[in-house]
Amino acid sequence: MNYCSHCGQPVEQCIPEGDNLPRHVCTVCHTIHYENPKIVAACIGEWEDRILLCRRAIEPRHGLWTLPAGFMENRESTREAALRETWEEARARVDIQSLYAVYSIPHISQVYMVFRGPLIEPAYEAGPESLAVELFREQDIPWETLAFPVMEKTLRQYFSDRDQGRHQSATHVGEITRPMGDQP
Amino acid sequence: MNYCSHCGQPVEQCIPEGDNLPRHVCTVCHTIHYENPKIVAACIGEWEDRILLCRRAIEPRHGLWTLPAGFMENRESTREAALRETWEEARARVDIQSLYAVYSIPHISQVYMVFRGPLIEPAYEAGPESLAVELFREQDIPWETLAFPVMEKTLRQYFSDRDQGRHQSATHVGEITRPMGDQP
Repeated sequence: MNYCSHCGQPVEQCIPEGDNLPRHVCTVCHTIHYENPKIVAACIGEWEDRILLCRRAIEPRHGLWTLPAGFMENRESTREAALRETWEEARARVDIQSLYAVYSIPHISQVYMVFRGPLIEPAYEAGPESLAVELFREQDIPWETLAFPVMEKTLRQYFSDRDQGRHQSATHVGEITRPMGDQP
Repeated sequence: MNYCSHCGQPVEQCIPEGDNLPRHVCTVCHTIHYENPKIVAACIGEWEDRILLCRRAIEPRHGLWTLPAGFMENRESTREAALRETWEEARARVDIQSLYAVYSIPHISQVYMVFRGPLIEPAYEAGPESLAVELFREQDIPWETLAFPVMEKTLRQYFSDRDQGRHQSATHVGEITRPMGDQP
């Protein structure tokens, strides 16, 4: 951030009075520009013993596999965001039943909110941001070509819970620390 | 938003190619400025049968009562944000045990993430943004002078759950719709 989005004049980094973190503050109109983490809403779409993954048609991680997921928009709920992303990326309708996990990723200032829900019908196809969409059994998950560490963490937890009949338990809350190679 | 925070030139609202929502886009450098919901981290701090509330020393809702809560910062986890806010506003240390509720407030593009945890010791005092901090039994909660509808929703749910011994159940996920008078 170089300029004030309100008046167009230069900003500088300083700690405002009464605050304890540096912020971008306008040198002319003194507007303080706060920056905060973004929510990524995701969905584990289930059909029988399989779950829905999308192969990314966009960067980053073009060609790798992910749960339907994307940035939550203003003026929607977390659940609506997960339903929307599942439709946009996988053209699938799900009946969201629970918040499965909340994973913070502090080094990129993102919070993943992963919902879980059965597909309403086994109908899906690649949306514009996907190359392919498929239902996978546990033994067929493409572990070596998942797009992001948070996807591996989510899916490992999911199958572990399912194997142990724990799926009605409390929402998982965790953190993804900076991995080797600085990937999200 | 009137100006590009990257180059300082005017922005205009338009729907970028491949998108379906209007964004602020720079007329010169073409940077797209996305805006997304903010997370508010909150904590239900418990001591025996009482919970901790703060009387606000700042606007909005100066003088009204709230759980310790505030905007999550970049580069922290949701749990760290709740611990930090509980310290900043109530000078209390809690042992966060679970994510109690996630409440979306679409009309103001906020998502409340409310954690629950016992105080480590019954020590607390007003931080700079609080006029007072007190432990309240259910019958003493100042229902008529709570700062925000999300606080009433959270506390009603909490005492209802506690009365029914349901506190180990799944995280509540809900939505706060626009109330009368346009309050958050």
